[in-house]
Amino acid sequence: MNAQTPDPSKPGLAIGIDIGGTKVAAGVVDEHGAVLAEQRRRTPGRDPRAVEATIVELVSELGKDHQIDSVGIGAAGWMDLSGGTVLFSPHLAWRNEPLRENLERLLRRPVMLTNDADAAAWAEWKFGKARGESRLVCITLGTGIGGAMVMDGRLERGRFGVAGEFGHQVIMPGGHRCECGNRGCWEQYASGNALGREARELARANSPVAQELLRVVDGEIDSITGTVVTELAQQGDPASIELIEDIGSWLGLGLANLAAALDPGMFVVGGGLCGAGELLLTPTRRAFKRNLTGRGFRPAARIELAELGSSAGLIGAADLSRSPRTS
Amino acid sequence: MNAQTPDPSKPGLAIGIDIGGTKVAAGVVDEHGAVLAEQRRRTPGRDPRAVEATIVELVSELGKDHQIDSVGIGAAGWMDLSGGTVLFSPHLAWRNEPLRENLERLLRRPVMLTNDADAAAWAEWKFGKARGESRLVCITLGTGIGGAMVMDGRLERGRFGVAGEFGHQVIMPGGHRCECGNRGCWEQYASGNALGREARELARANSPVAQELLRVVDGEIDSITGTVVTELAQQGDPASIELIEDIGSWLGLGLANLAAALDPGMFVVGGGLCGAGELLLTPTRRAFKRNLTGRGFRPAARIELAELGSSAGLIGAADLSRSPRTS
Repeated sequence: MNAQTPDPSKPGLAIGIDIGGTKVAAGVVDEHGAVLAEQRRRTPGRDPRAVEATIVELVSELGKDHQIDSVGIGAAGWMDLSGGTVLFSPHLAWRNEPLRENLERLLRRPVMLTNDADAAAWAEWKFGKARGESRLVCITLGTGIGGAMVMDGRLERGRFGVAGEFGHQVIMPGGHRCECGNRGCWEQYASGNALGREARELARANSPVAQELLRVVDGEIDSITGTVVTELAQQGDPASIELIEDIGSWLGLGLANLAAALDPGMFVVGGGLCGAGELLLTPTRRAFKRNLTGRGFRPAARIELAELGSSAGLIGAADLSRSPRTS
Repeated sequence: MNAQTPDPSKPGLAIGIDIGGTKVAAGVVDEHGAVLAEQRRRTPGRDPRAVEATIVELVSELGKDHQIDSVGIGAAGWMDLSGGTVLFSPHLAWRNEPLRENLERLLRRPVMLTNDADAAAWAEWKFGKARGESRLVCITLGTGIGGAMVMDGRLERGRFGVAGEFGHQVIMPGGHRCECGNRGCWEQYASGNALGREARELARANSPVAQELLRVVDGEIDSITGTVVTELAQQGDPASIELIEDIGSWLGLGLANLAAALDPGMFVVGGGLCGAGELLLTPTRRAFKRNLTGRGFRPAARIELAELGSSAGLIGAADLSRSPRTS
């Protein structure tokens, strides 16, 4: 989509790969953050070996037409501080997985491994919406909620490398069970998964407002996903618009919580759910203002949509693979 | 209490003053963090002028016997990044108050102004429990919850200077009304105020388990405060022990939320409520482990009681007044 005429002799090219709960995106990225070639796949189930095989395949295909200096992976999991091991992934099957070592053996070259949300935040800070922001918080709304911080131009990864898991802050004690094992996590209320679940429940309740949702999936309620709802909302379906407003209310509340704790200058919101655009952003900003502690007596962070869209993760992973380590 | 023989010729002495919702503590502090003289007062109501007068009085009294190089104030309010203005204080009457300018006029010398929780965290990092910790989160449990972060040896104050207001993260949507104006803030569930409120409600319900609480205040339910409950718990009153366990459960849940976001190496918990010691710490650690996302697959922060007790704030304020600005 973002492909430009490839220039095999161009120096400083890197492959970035973004592994999410549902999609794998890979691209060849130049030193200015431009994507010269891009490929996407569905995440091949939860088997770690299948995910590795997909990565190897993508690197091999993208490497055919380009001279690649380095490879960077942003993965939907919690990395240890050394960037070698995926400690845990709520949405994939990694548990203490030595992913970097496995990939370096398979690819026969050094690999930079980082969290997918860190990669996306890095791209937005370096090439996208948040250039120059000294205190940036990024939220990636996909299957769940990814989170990352860039402070004074450095990714803030915490003491053990797993900072930024904002999606697993409990926002509703005793609430919905989360893939992380706990209950009431923020991402159970503000994510693509949450949007799909709420829509399916509405459809199952056989509510008269859910007619359009039921129609587009021919009554197959299990086929209603966040993407289906987002598309219907953009076509003007009132129930789908309301469902996205609900997500925005929870998103804004959670951002107000993060502002209380972190006081950033800007929030950048990216990920698949951002396809909803203003349908999501307007209720989010409203709930943020409504819930910001000290409102009226403090400057408030801006809330902006990501500029690099669904390519942010791969762009950031590619860039981090060529930079000296930044945190 | 911590007074040692004063040495008027000793260089590098600073006065630190910690202004909380109920108490003002002031002390003369040397460059190693030792308190040479200390005085305490009740916070004189909510009138900003009365608070200023108390500060002037304390500086004057402490200055009589010591050669003072600088004065630092840690105040329970949200400072702007320049450290000149208290933007807002949930527990005191400051609203866009130019406190530093007022005090410099009254005291005729430069004054360093910072948040009280920042001051306490700085003291614990430099002289107390958290020496050498690269990612420290401090929680001060008093009237409300104060919060602060020290990262790589610097206070992290956010883009606008008001980071660390963890106590105003919503942990129970639609819950108890908070002094900040919102509902369901963490400090409504884990603070001295919360402990007092819960105990009074239990007593008002005329529950048979509240007998001892009612007895010690001669049936004057409004006299039941967090301090009363803490003292009764230490004497073994089962209901008071349970009430502190409830506070610990909420405290541990909130710390797990902060670990998800910030991934510190250590939490230091200070403030008046820490007088409860292990009665508070044991249920806190239990709830933290129970709610930590990714538990079993990640290193976990330690939770420790503050070492400098109720003097941490004044020690930190004094030290920051003589240091070059650290953030």
